[in-house]
Amino acid sequence: MQERSVFFLSDRTGITAETLGRSLLTQFEGVSFKQTSWPFLDTPEKSRNAVEQINRAAEEDGVRPILFSTLVNPETLAIIRESKGLLLDFFDAFNTPLEEELGVRSSHVMGRSHGISDYTTYTSRIDALNFALANDDGMTTNHYPAADIILVGVSRSGKTPTCLYLALQYGILAANYPLTEEDFNRTRLPELITPYKGKLFGLTIDPERLRQIRTERRPNSRYADLNQCRFELDAVQAIYRREGIRCINTSSMSIEEIATTLLQQAGLKRRLIG
Amino acid sequence: MQERSVFFLSDRTGITAETLGRSLLTQFEGVSFKQTSWPFLDTPEKSRNAVEQINRAAEEDGVRPILFSTLVNPETLAIIRESKGLLLDFFDAFNTPLEEELGVRSSHVMGRSHGISDYTTYTSRIDALNFALANDDGMTTNHYPAADIILVGVSRSGKTPTCLYLALQYGILAANYPLTEEDFNRTRLPELITPYKGKLFGLTIDPERLRQIRTERRPNSRYADLNQCRFELDAVQAIYRREGIRCINTSSMSIEEIATTLLQQAGLKRRLIG
Repeated sequence: MQERSVFFLSDRTGITAETLGRSLLTQFEGVSFKQTSWPFLDTPEKSRNAVEQINRAAEEDGVRPILFSTLVNPETLAIIRESKGLLLDFFDAFNTPLEEELGVRSSHVMGRSHGISDYTTYTSRIDALNFALANDDGMTTNHYPAADIILVGVSRSGKTPTCLYLALQYGILAANYPLTEEDFNRTRLPELITPYKGKLFGLTIDPERLRQIRTERRPNSRYADLNQCRFELDAVQAIYRREGIRCINTSSMSIEEIATTLLQQAGLKRRLIG
Repeated sequence: MQERSVFFLSDRTGITAETLGRSLLTQFEGVSFKQTSWPFLDTPEKSRNAVEQINRAAEEDGVRPILFSTLVNPETLAIIRESKGLLLDFFDAFNTPLEEELGVRSSHVMGRSHGISDYTTYTSRIDALNFALANDDGMTTNHYPAADIILVGVSRSGKTPTCLYLALQYGILAANYPLTEEDFNRTRLPELITPYKGKLFGLTIDPERLRQIRTERRPNSRYADLNQCRFELDAVQAIYRREGIRCINTSSMSIEEIATTLLQQAGLKRRLIG
């Protein structure tokens, strides 16, 4: 198997370089990538250290390392260009067409994204996170009038991670409420959440996948038993149908996919942009 | 002020297209961008709906909308190319140089990033999140032997959001422990966490910024008083110095920047890649 060294180079966090770089790399099968991140590459000294490491990798591998860069500082870029790597420069590739289209010169100021853009944004984000933490697992229900969305579902269907992700990434006020034995037997929504039906979104999951997740937590328990998982999932799905609650199956979805699907299907307005 | 419509187009979550697109847009001052996301653009019908919306924006604005795309499916791309927007295609721009460099054809398979790559990765991520939740704010200390990092600091210095972000994004096992009145007066670390000194990382923040954050939470309280903030911060900094605990000032940092800085300075090994 071909093995290649990859470096993510950035003036700031490097999250953008890593995100796009890794998306590209996933398209190449049969190659194994040794990945190194160099965030905060903001002095000539650090840049020269990066070049040394790149050149060492080039020598050891016998092939050029691949460099994904969102570097904005021209001085830093000039140093990196002297290295033995193949430079794929995300900003450079699109800045020129954007400058032409907008008729405006790019500011070439680093760190505008993933930085603290303003304190109001920071506050909304932290508020959303505190909301998700305070309203996790039905702990309180008295903040539901303020919620953007309330997730319901059986234990371990993905409610908590989704709420935290919606808060951190999009500033959405997301609460979650577990459906339990009592609700299954009544095949109804708990009365506490009935007034907020318009904000509810049901999560479901395949029984086999739920069994697997629960087994990692409590092996050989009734909780993790396949029949118990089936019973609970049949019951919540009956509740969703009967009450007309929209639902998504999270079995083969990542947290990002669940969150993005919810944003779209529930028509949620993001409180944070970028 | 120039106003331009921007569309983020993707076969899957659209997170990559949004991340890089927004990074680029932040470089252009004096332009206001109306942003629309079209994730899960995976059928010809949805693509034609997107084209209609793009063309409507082109007519209303009197200028071309800007399209940031990570679309991989050739059929979808062909439909989008017929629209009146300026297509900036992130994959296309870098796939060709990568194919040449690697001598491998790109698989053009969509959804490889931000998807559920495998269940082991999913499990590590959820485990890390549960770890952060269970070990927030010094709730328990008996899992500290398993922690990758333990953040200390005064209330509202950014410990909880940073731990959750480290867990969700990187699968890092992050705990946090609040330093309180008793510790300030002793100018020492609490005994419970002394054995884990090698894993500790101190957060600090400017007194004025702390006052601002605490005021939003409890206005006109002793807790939010500037002198109290100063006293607490002087005390924790004295503890950090005395005990040789590395620390960072979070005043003007986003959660992403704090997390990336910690990864780098603490030399933390990521449990999740991409």
